[in-house]
Amino acid sequence: MNDARPIAAIVLAAGKGTRMKSSRHKVLHEIAGRSMIDHLLASVEELRPERLVAIVGEGREQLHAALGERVTYAVQDPQLGTGHAVQQAAGALAGFAGDVLVVYGDVPFVKASTMRTMIARLNEPDAPAAVVLGFEPEDALRYGRVVAQQGRISKMVEWKDANEEERACTLCNSGLLAARSEDLFALLDRVSNENAQAEFYLPDIVNIAIADGRGCAVVTGDSADEVAGINSRAELAAAERQWQDLRRAEAMDEGVTLRAPETVFFSYDTEIAADVVVEANVVFGPGVSVASGATIRAFSHLEGARVGEGCEVGPYARLRPGAVLEKGSKVGNFVEIKKATLGEGAKANHLSYLGDATVGAGANIGAGTITCNYDGYFKHKTTIGPRAFIGSNSALIAPVSIGADAIVAAGSAVSRDVADGELRMVRAEQLVKPGWADRFHDAMKRKKGEGK
Amino acid sequence: MNDARPIAAIVLAAGKGTRMKSSRHKVLHEIAGRSMIDHLLASVEELRPERLVAIVGEGREQLHAALGERVTYAVQDPQLGTGHAVQQAAGALAGFAGDVLVVYGDVPFVKASTMRTMIARLNEPDAPAAVVLGFEPEDALRYGRVVAQQGRISKMVEWKDANEEERACTLCNSGLLAARSEDLFALLDRVSNENAQAEFYLPDIVNIAIADGRGCAVVTGDSADEVAGINSRAELAAAERQWQDLRRAEAMDEGVTLRAPETVFFSYDTEIAADVVVEANVVFGPGVSVASGATIRAFSHLEGARVGEGCEVGPYARLRPGAVLEKGSKVGNFVEIKKATLGEGAKANHLSYLGDATVGAGANIGAGTITCNYDGYFKHKTTIGPRAFIGSNSALIAPVSIGADAIVAAGSAVSRDVADGELRMVRAEQLVKPGWADRFHDAMKRKKGEGK
Amino acid sequence: MNDARPIAAIVLAAGKGTRMKSSRHKVLHEIAGRSMIDHLLASVEELRPERLVAIVGEGREQLHAALGERVTYAVQDPQLGTGHAVQQAAGALAGFAGDVLVVYGDVPFVKASTMRTMIARLNEPDAPAAVVLGFEPEDALRYGRVVAQQGRISKMVEWKDANEEERACTLCNSGLLAARSEDLFALLDRVSNENAQAEFYLPDIVNIAIADGRGCAVVTGDSADEVAGINSRAELAAAERQWQDLRRAEAMDEGVTLRAPETVFFSYDTEIAADVVVEANVVFGPGVSVASGATIRAFSHLEGARVGEGCEVGPYARLRPGAVLEKGSKVGNFVEIKKATLGEGAKANHLSYLGDATVGAGANIGAGTITCNYDGYFKHKTTIGPRAFIGSNSALIAPVSIGADAIVAAGSAVSRDVADGELRMVRAEQLVKPGWADRFHDAMKRKKGEGK
Repeated sequence: MNDARPIAAIVLAAGKGTRMKSSRHKVLHEIAGRSMIDHLLASVEELRPERLVAIVGEGREQLHAALGERVTYAVQDPQLGTGHAVQQAAGALAGFAGDVLVVYGDVPFVKASTMRTMIARLNEPDAPAAVVLGFEPEDALRYGRVVAQQGRISKMVEWKDANEEERACTLCNSGLLAARSEDLFALLDRVSNENAQAEFYLPDIVNIAIADGRGCAVVTGDSADEVAGINSRAELAAAERQWQDLRRAEAMDEGVTLRAPETVFFSYDTEIAADVVVEANVVFGPGVSVASGATIRAFSHLEGARVGEGCEVGPYARLRPGAVLEKGSKVGNFVEIKKATLGEGAKANHLSYLGDATVGAGANIGAGTITCNYDGYFKHKTTIGPRAFIGSNSALIAPVSIGADAIVAAGSAVSRDVADGELRMVRAEQLVKPGWADRFHDAMKRKKGEGK
Repeated sequence: MNDARPIAAIVLAAGKGTRMKSSRHKVLHEIAGRSMIDHLLASVEELRPERLVAIVGEGREQLHAALGERVTYAVQDPQLGTGHAVQQAAGALAGFAGDVLVVYGDVPFVKASTMRTMIARLNEPDAPAAVVLGFEPEDALRYGRVVAQQGRISKMVEWKDANEEERACTLCNSGLLAARSEDLFALLDRVSNENAQAEFYLPDIVNIAIADGRGCAVVTGDSADEVAGINSRAELAAAERQWQDLRRAEAMDEGVTLRAPETVFFSYDTEIAADVVVEANVVFGPGVSVASGATIRAFSHLEGARVGEGCEVGPYARLRPGAVLEKGSKVGNFVEIKKATLGEGAKANHLSYLGDATVGAGANIGAGTITCNYDGYFKHKTTIGPRAFIGSNSALIAPVSIGADAIVAAGSAVSRDVADGELRMVRAEQLVKPGWADRFHDAMKRKKGEGK
Repeated sequence: MNDARPIAAIVLAAGKGTRMKSSRHKVLHEIAGRSMIDHLLASVEELRPERLVAIVGEGREQLHAALGERVTYAVQDPQLGTGHAVQQAAGALAGFAGDVLVVYGDVPFVKASTMRTMIARLNEPDAPAAVVLGFEPEDALRYGRVVAQQGRISKMVEWKDANEEERACTLCNSGLLAARSEDLFALLDRVSNENAQAEFYLPDIVNIAIADGRGCAVVTGDSADEVAGINSRAELAAAERQWQDLRRAEAMDEGVTLRAPETVFFSYDTEIAADVVVEANVVFGPGVSVASGATIRAFSHLEGARVGEGCEVGPYARLRPGAVLEKGSKVGNFVEIKKATLGEGAKANHLSYLGDATVGAGANIGAGTITCNYDGYFKHKTTIGPRAFIGSNSALIAPVSIGADAIVAAGSAVSRDVADGELRMVRAEQLVKPGWADRFHDAMKRKKGEGK
């Protein structure tokens, strides 16, 4: 591959996505915690394109909001076919001379290596006018066919226009295509819309180039799966399933124990070390890393969290963005951690909420402890010192600081700082009413009897 | 179909269901949150039958308790075969003249449209004596065969009595049958029990009618699945799985995102709008509706709840009967809502229990808030005004009312009403004991050392 | 089978398990809540072996820690093949005369009945020199072949050394072997390592015996699955899946309702009675028994717990070791029970932690109740009397005792015993600040405005 030649990519994302039945733009639907277009752009960007143009239509304001300046936008309106869509990039590519790659927002899993193969083929000595990405599906169905011998295309043909012999050919057209900028737009100008749909089809440029006596090439990727298009929620779910299955297999290969792999859900960026044990029913949202020796127990949910070596999480632990669990710390059942650090060996085992907090090493957070971090307007910080002991059912009213080795008595609502080694107790007198309960029971039973 | 002719339905539900190994009546086992017989009756009732007779045997008191006056009961004791079972309906159908449909309590998913097809066929000009519902399973196994040409039956035959040619016939007898009342009981009187089991078989009436020179017809439904009988817990689970898979596909078709469809469980009456996102591991019990734009996060459990537009539920939210979430409200982790309304934009994000309560628009329910709605005898109501702020770890002792814009300080047990714009704080003095914790640690470490 | 002849078993567990990529010894990885070697030893021990020798290598200190005196250890270092491994047991079997069974730590699911079949065959009148356990996999792949007619072996051959005819033979060598002690070590002494790997192979003893003119026999077990070896985390997960599927089917056969069997996870020792209903997403850790009529609702997690007749557990209930639920008691959502007994009909329905406690019959534990059982050094007990009513959000500071019929007012932190029929209230005065909240809102809105 010639490093010197610049690359541009055109991402087709103007389709209405009608079958999604969604007010959300089709390419913004998520797989593994990341939108389709984000998956695709991440791969495209590995090729360091000099220009990156998105062809947009309805719902383009959603794309603007999601992608910002990451791409240049070109509007296709009305929508007259894939060839017409690519033509809309002409303005954005004015002055650009190099290799152009055409990709699709709803075909999110094409690998960067496959795109590189396309570009490399374009730059081989025989200089094909266009390089098509073909694929060989298990069942070729009604996909357009690429009629080719030894990688040289003799004809691109839509299924409905194909004869028996052409249909028997199992190499299909993924739609992805690479061509030099000077060829691409010149050929597109010659494409006609004299067909049943009255549309300008991108693959027609291949047939035109061949008619001109120029060669066109086809390459294939690693598997048919990478060019699967996603047009409905069922296909979205199927893609998610496929992605998860690959990721689960990969995790196990790398030495992670998944007790019931089919019940563990990863995100695109989950980092998980060898010798981590993940029990059944665990969800990893984006931004999670888990260090070696940690155990993530059943029914846990992690997002934006860092779990240190040998930590124990769950069951039923919820780690939210900013949760940092240092070595050997523990987060137990029905505990929520948000923007909070648990120091080495610290424990929050039951029914607690720790938000905007720092918990020192070896501290013990009793059951039912709540950091009151929000006053309805602002968030405030709680700091808990090393080896502090927070009694059960306590409320720590932030901003507040609990000293090292300090003890907060059970049931206390702590509104002022507690010094190192101090005991803080906030508790009313024990009011004792002998026999009161017996009288209450009698009265209530009578009332209940009357109520019948 | 002749609307003028009345319909009666006989539901066979006397079987012992031995393979279920259950003290619960077989037809009362549930699929998608509804008993088998309830699924069946719902379909039967679409035909507006004039009479509805259940043939019952052992465990009939359970059916009485479940179905009440919805059906007339006729007892079959002893149980001498399907023909004998249908005969028991004679008394309950005394004076009835019309079309009779025989269905089975353990074949719950026959569609109303299929039953209508049976009745319609019975009323065609050739006036068959009986109409049998046939089906073509993937594997015909040992099902009884319906030997027929162009929908006209020449013979009904049990598998064990069938010859090679008859076994080769793949049209099987579902057991369901329609006949005119005057024919049905007259034919049944002529059925004999001279067979290996010494039982009176319902399909025999078809052979008797044919021998009389009368025609009998067979029709088929949409798929073999609808006539699957459920005789064991494994078949129950398989039927649940099949039902769920269809419902999941339907939801996705309608524009609902299911991140991991195989982990989402619907009930028979779940209403879920387009553009709802449902994460992994969500259970919908009966009586739930979810409006557009809502997100149901992982590990949530909903029953009898109404979720408004754009609400966010979960992860780990439990909505129980009577939970009403108005537009844009949020219920977060480890929160239980029962008979309570959350006003527009109100939030209960962490570790709370709201029961028998009304929460005003924009109110904020702090972590660990509990409505004390039960005194051991009666339930009482809590009313929280719009924009009120309930501090964390508070107990609201019902009956109690918190005014608009009021604030309850963290850790308060509120036993008297709070006025609009008022602050209520129920908190003891901060008792400070400097150095106490240090001395306690020393003593305990000593004691622990001694204990070894 | 000759009862008089003693049995010894040699467990090969010296393999490095490289493909596991684990610092944990391969045979200590768990399936169904129990390590592989523990599964295997449980079956081996059913044969009451007089001696039980584990051949160990790297990581043997982990095996020592896990198995203690349950087996005798013999170290294989260096590791020169399976024959060499078995030879290491010679010392531990000095003076032993009887039948020797060779099994593998990473082949954990061989049934005791299969091992008995091997031993019985060894003792038949034709007295084979060795008995090999063969299996017929769906795909024979590259397993070593057992060339045999009517159970008499003519040759053991590695796949790579086998000719076409031998490879066509589908009976494969599981590796398990039985031989008399006097034969085993004598034959092993004659095995050579003149092969590509320069290893001493155990199956070679069969060929040597045959060359001596002695007979050797092959037997097979119930299914190929029981001899599946586990060498990677993916195989571990597959074995777990297979085990769970069998257990789920068995539970349903026995009359347990599993609404979604694929989401229920059992442990090796789970005891679950007929007419128990288990909803979706339930995890049974080791040591759980559930009595008839109980319902285990969705998202529940049980370990070391005993659930009585007709109890209702969950959704989102966590029962930890020592949880005992007597007849008809209820544990609801977000409730954790550890070393605690709930008396008949007692209820803990919401957001509570009960640890080291005894709750009397008919008692009602309010939402948010926490037993403060830990002071940072020692655990203490809480005793709650029959029919006691613990108000919501209470902290019971152990050691503490609440009497029969007593009432604890909501929000109380109870630090002293409560007598029978007494009311205990620990609550500060209701501090009322009219208008304060309104002024606070004004001030904060101003501040928030400034902050922008």
